[in-house]
Amino acid sequence: MQGRLGRRAVLGGFVAALFARRARAQTSPASAGPVDPSLVDDLVAANRILADQGVVDGYGHVSVRHPADPQRYLMSRSIAPELVTAADVMEYDLDSTAVDPRGRTSYLERFIHGEIYRARPDVKAVVHNHSPSVIPFGVSTVPLRPLYHMSAFLWPGVPVFEIRNAGGPATDMLIRDAALGQALARSLGAGPVVLMRGHGAVAVGGSLPEVVFRGVYTEVNARLQAQAMALGGTVTYLDPEEAKRAQASIAGTIGRPWELWKKKALAR
Amino acid sequence: MQGRLGRRAVLGGFVAALFARRARAQTSPASAGPVDPSLVDDLVAANRILADQGVVDGYGHVSVRHPADPQRYLMSRSIAPELVTAADVMEYDLDSTAVDPRGRTSYLERFIHGEIYRARPDVKAVVHNHSPSVIPFGVSTVPLRPLYHMSAFLWPGVPVFEIRNAGGPATDMLIRDAALGQALARSLGAGPVVLMRGHGAVAVGGSLPEVVFRGVYTEVNARLQAQAMALGGTVTYLDPEEAKRAQASIAGTIGRPWELWKKKALAR
Amino acid sequence: MQGRLGRRAVLGGFVAALFARRARAQTSPASAGPVDPSLVDDLVAANRILADQGVVDGYGHVSVRHPADPQRYLMSRSIAPELVTAADVMEYDLDSTAVDPRGRTSYLERFIHGEIYRARPDVKAVVHNHSPSVIPFGVSTVPLRPLYHMSAFLWPGVPVFEIRNAGGPATDMLIRDAALGQALARSLGAGPVVLMRGHGAVAVGGSLPEVVFRGVYTEVNARLQAQAMALGGTVTYLDPEEAKRAQASIAGTIGRPWELWKKKALAR
Amino acid sequence: MQGRLGRRAVLGGFVAALFARRARAQTSPASAGPVDPSLVDDLVAANRILADQGVVDGYGHVSVRHPADPQRYLMSRSIAPELVTAADVMEYDLDSTAVDPRGRTSYLERFIHGEIYRARPDVKAVVHNHSPSVIPFGVSTVPLRPLYHMSAFLWPGVPVFEIRNAGGPATDMLIRDAALGQALARSLGAGPVVLMRGHGAVAVGGSLPEVVFRGVYTEVNARLQAQAMALGGTVTYLDPEEAKRAQASIAGTIGRPWELWKKKALAR
Repeated sequence: MQGRLGRRAVLGGFVAALFARRARAQTSPASAGPVDPSLVDDLVAANRILADQGVVDGYGHVSVRHPADPQRYLMSRSIAPELVTAADVMEYDLDSTAVDPRGRTSYLERFIHGEIYRARPDVKAVVHNHSPSVIPFGVSTVPLRPLYHMSAFLWPGVPVFEIRNAGGPATDMLIRDAALGQALARSLGAGPVVLMRGHGAVAVGGSLPEVVFRGVYTEVNARLQAQAMALGGTVTYLDPEEAKRAQASIAGTIGRPWELWKKKALAR
Repeated sequence: MQGRLGRRAVLGGFVAALFARRARAQTSPASAGPVDPSLVDDLVAANRILADQGVVDGYGHVSVRHPADPQRYLMSRSIAPELVTAADVMEYDLDSTAVDPRGRTSYLERFIHGEIYRARPDVKAVVHNHSPSVIPFGVSTVPLRPLYHMSAFLWPGVPVFEIRNAGGPATDMLIRDAALGQALARSLGAGPVVLMRGHGAVAVGGSLPEVVFRGVYTEVNARLQAQAMALGGTVTYLDPEEAKRAQASIAGTIGRPWELWKKKALAR
Repeated sequence: MQGRLGRRAVLGGFVAALFARRARAQTSPASAGPVDPSLVDDLVAANRILADQGVVDGYGHVSVRHPADPQRYLMSRSIAPELVTAADVMEYDLDSTAVDPRGRTSYLERFIHGEIYRARPDVKAVVHNHSPSVIPFGVSTVPLRPLYHMSAFLWPGVPVFEIRNAGGPATDMLIRDAALGQALARSLGAGPVVLMRGHGAVAVGGSLPEVVFRGVYTEVNARLQAQAMALGGTVTYLDPEEAKRAQASIAGTIGRPWELWKKKALAR
Repeated sequence: MQGRLGRRAVLGGFVAALFARRARAQTSPASAGPVDPSLVDDLVAANRILADQGVVDGYGHVSVRHPADPQRYLMSRSIAPELVTAADVMEYDLDSTAVDPRGRTSYLERFIHGEIYRARPDVKAVVHNHSPSVIPFGVSTVPLRPLYHMSAFLWPGVPVFEIRNAGGPATDMLIRDAALGQALARSLGAGPVVLMRGHGAVAVGGSLPEVVFRGVYTEVNARLQAQAMALGGTVTYLDPEEAKRAQASIAGTIGRPWELWKKKALAR
């Protein structure tokens, strides 16, 4: 009896291990393959720049879509952006499941990234941050509007995501699953930036330099708008037509601050 | 005559020294024993982080309860927090009497710490600071309220301690004795933070990383709230239920900024 | 046939090259000759100081008129001011055509400089910037006015350039040609500073130290004015007569901050 | 003839030199003798601290009364405070005439110091600065009032000096002579600080650490007061009685920030 039970137990263990392996094979997505190291370097730089420019503090994250497979994206493990190195970069599928975690912890809110990449094929990079001047606009009935040509990309308008509408009256404020990520992506729509009430913001872009630029100049515009409103006069915002043209012209120049920011951030 | 007077003086000195030794033996409490050096390192780090993050300037102090004896706590001698090293750390009983002063000066307001540890067995660490954005809320009829998920721990409300009520119309504004410390602890109640009118604030927590986190994000919330109110629209604050859940979720992540802050503060 | 066509093609290419050379000879202006290296050093210092003092970020530019020929000016190639070195300095004529580009890219908005030098023989140096506190005044109906003796040079008043008036309802907000540069110069008039709606500002001066001083203290005055207005009382501005005298006295002291700023900026 | 004229000329030159020496002896005051080098070090430190703490920029000055002679004071030559070294320190009499200029330029506004030392025997150190948050209170009808215990020393009130009352409607805003210095000293009265409309402020104290402390915490109080007023509620200021007691208690602690500030400022 013992022998048979023993054999059964061994067999049971073996079968369980097989199933576990299969289950893992099902849930761990395949890698889309290695990327050019310069892209990883740019992702590391983006993390450091966002910290250096005050767009992220100990929290916040930035990702880039995999250049070889639109169903994959790259993002650091759960660590403060200022401390990110190439070894921290992980690959995710659009369900935000890590390809090869090797014990590394993922950001709880990675669904922000996966669901936006799924909903917006044009988006190649995503930043989530708590930058200080945008949070007041996220809790106020006063909308954030572009008044500065560097922030012209905000011309489609900046919606505010109210998590109570998507997740009920008492969430923990975090985008902790795919459903909340999808709701956030719907709120973003076709735009460049969405604010998150009581939380922060998400900016999207066609490249890492562009999304970093947008994170920085969304913060700058929020600060400038608050100051302009405080003066008490009438404020002139950018007209959508001039904003579109300004955005197009300035898009060709963002390598200039990117090179500066990179040099400064990596020198620290 | 001279000889007898001389002998009397010598004898008097000897007796006085004896009494002084006894008095010291009576008032100097016994030590609860040495603590793990890593706790002292964390206390030093907490001092430096609070300075680096702008929560304290030349003034302010942070303490931690002795892990082996809830009747004892550890805090630096009277020195600017940015300059604290392990050699400055002293042990106190809950009357805020130093165990082994060896000539080191104590913070005048150490009663803040002793009386809060006495009143709040759940509290393991205390910060007293004059952080710039909270002081305006301490002198205003406008209450400080959480509007940012990182500051969700403020959901129980932030009372303002009016020293005139406790110490009469003309104190020197300082918590210079046990009675004032007890009054402040009553004002704090079961909450995480109390403001002190015309003076500063106290934050409490279950560990050094938590209390540092609370010091930093109380300051951030105050700044954000002032900015949000200045926009002139209606401000949405955190609902208590969502705040409780946000606090619980975020409690699990505070190691992330702690590691960053520590690295930055100790590198200076 | 083939031979003749081939010869024609060769001949055509030769003639085209000749014309191109002539065209280049026509459009590339002659140099006014080398300048004292200390002037180039000062131009580099001016770029770095403006970045160090927060008057420019990744964008903005500063130029100086050629000392030997009022029809020429010197300015960096298109690069972030903080990164400028002597090798980046190029010479331009007043049409803002580069004398010797050698593949170096010019700032798109160089016409700001050329057209102001043309319109204002007294001007020896020009700064264009997006300094943070002046932008709100550029989008507000509230005028920027001097209230601080260091900013007394603003006494003639600070007009706001509305590009819609000069370039139609939907420009890209940039001074991208001579006509817009001329319109901006008309808006500046005989004054020291002009704001550009939704964009930034231009300051002019009689030397690099003076124009840097004006860039810095226009920013400071804007910040102080916003703060003074926010207090809610009545604000006393400088009277034009006292402002003129203050300007004259302070003009003799600007070497003092210039030396400090230079030392700090070049030490980075 | 030539010989006699030659001799006359020689004699004339000799007599002229004699008179010049006498004239210099009349106008150049005698030195009160050397001071302890540690006082000069503290004066240098005070200059650097004020720059490091943002109380002075390229302008501003700090002086200390000569310990051996109340009719003399020490102050740097005309240079940015951040650059001051011991070699820049000069001695002045209360007419603000330099004892031994040796070609060194004096601050134009040194009369601020001389006339305050003459009018206020209790004052041992004087700071003149343009610190950013106090200037708005100098141009506003809203008075600066202490609301923070560290700024309790402001309890006697902070008058605003209007130079138009003392110097007529069109001065150059500068305290460029003894008469204006005396008018400013009358405005200061027996108080700790006087604001100068459209210009800056003067703080006085019983020592260099005290006057530096006052410069720093006058700036801090101004910033906090502006923020508290902007919240829109009612603001509680320090009661004069509690302020007097707070000032007395805090006076005993200013060595703590002084040591910190000194260490930080001299490390740069």
